[in-house]
Amino acid sequence: MSMENIGRVAAHEPPYYTVVFTSVRPDRPEGYGETAERLNELVQEVPGFLGYESARTPGGLAITVGYFRDEEAIAAWQQSLEHQAAQKRGRAEWYESYSVHIGKVERSYGFERE
Amino acid sequence: MSMENIGRVAAHEPPYYTVVFTSVRPDRPEGYGETAERLNELVQEVPGFLGYESARTPGGLAITVGYFRDEEAIAAWQQSLEHQAAQKRGRAEWYESYSVHIGKVERSYGFERE
Repeated sequence: MSMENIGRVAAHEPPYYTVVFTSVRPDRPEGYGETAERLNELVQEVPGFLGYESARTPGGLAITVGYFRDEEAIAAWQQSLEHQAAQKRGRAEWYESYSVHIGKVERSYGFERE
Repeated sequence: MSMENIGRVAAHEPPYYTVVFTSVRPDRPEGYGETAERLNELVQEVPGFLGYESARTPGGLAITVGYFRDEEAIAAWQQSLEHQAAQKRGRAEWYESYSVHIGKVERSYGFERE
């Protein structure tokens, strides 16, 4: 099933990959905002990066979904030294817990109000 | 890579599936809360349903990730008539837009603060 144009939410032709990152952290830990902004710039340069979406319940869970064309694109992002340094700082200072689920998407669909 | 015990976030042994549902809707549309509560009860009965996580930025994007053991579990949930009726009402009344990305997870990992 191919994906319709669904406006504010991502539309990509399968196959592609979702990297689901769920995390628990304080609202505004020191240094977090600047690092997130820098990573947002960096990831745009990764060949095969398709975009990301993020939501966070105040005081609760955050979920970010990154969309990548293939495993190579994910590996390139994971091998970024600046990304690795940020992950290390995240474990040391920011996150209570997180989980990462890397899935190969063969099927997607969407809806947009007319 | 098998998944460590990561506390408040889901831990499942691959392979499994993520169903990423991202949506935009008003804060509290009429009938939404009751339906969400009912669907939450119903999905627990689906064999192979492993759990879900949800986050919503107030006034912004909502992301729910459902975890399922296999394609059969996802199909059983999608074929639920009550679920289908809720989806129909969602498109008619609640959602501005949504997208669904179904991915097969072969790799996951996590972190929990000691």
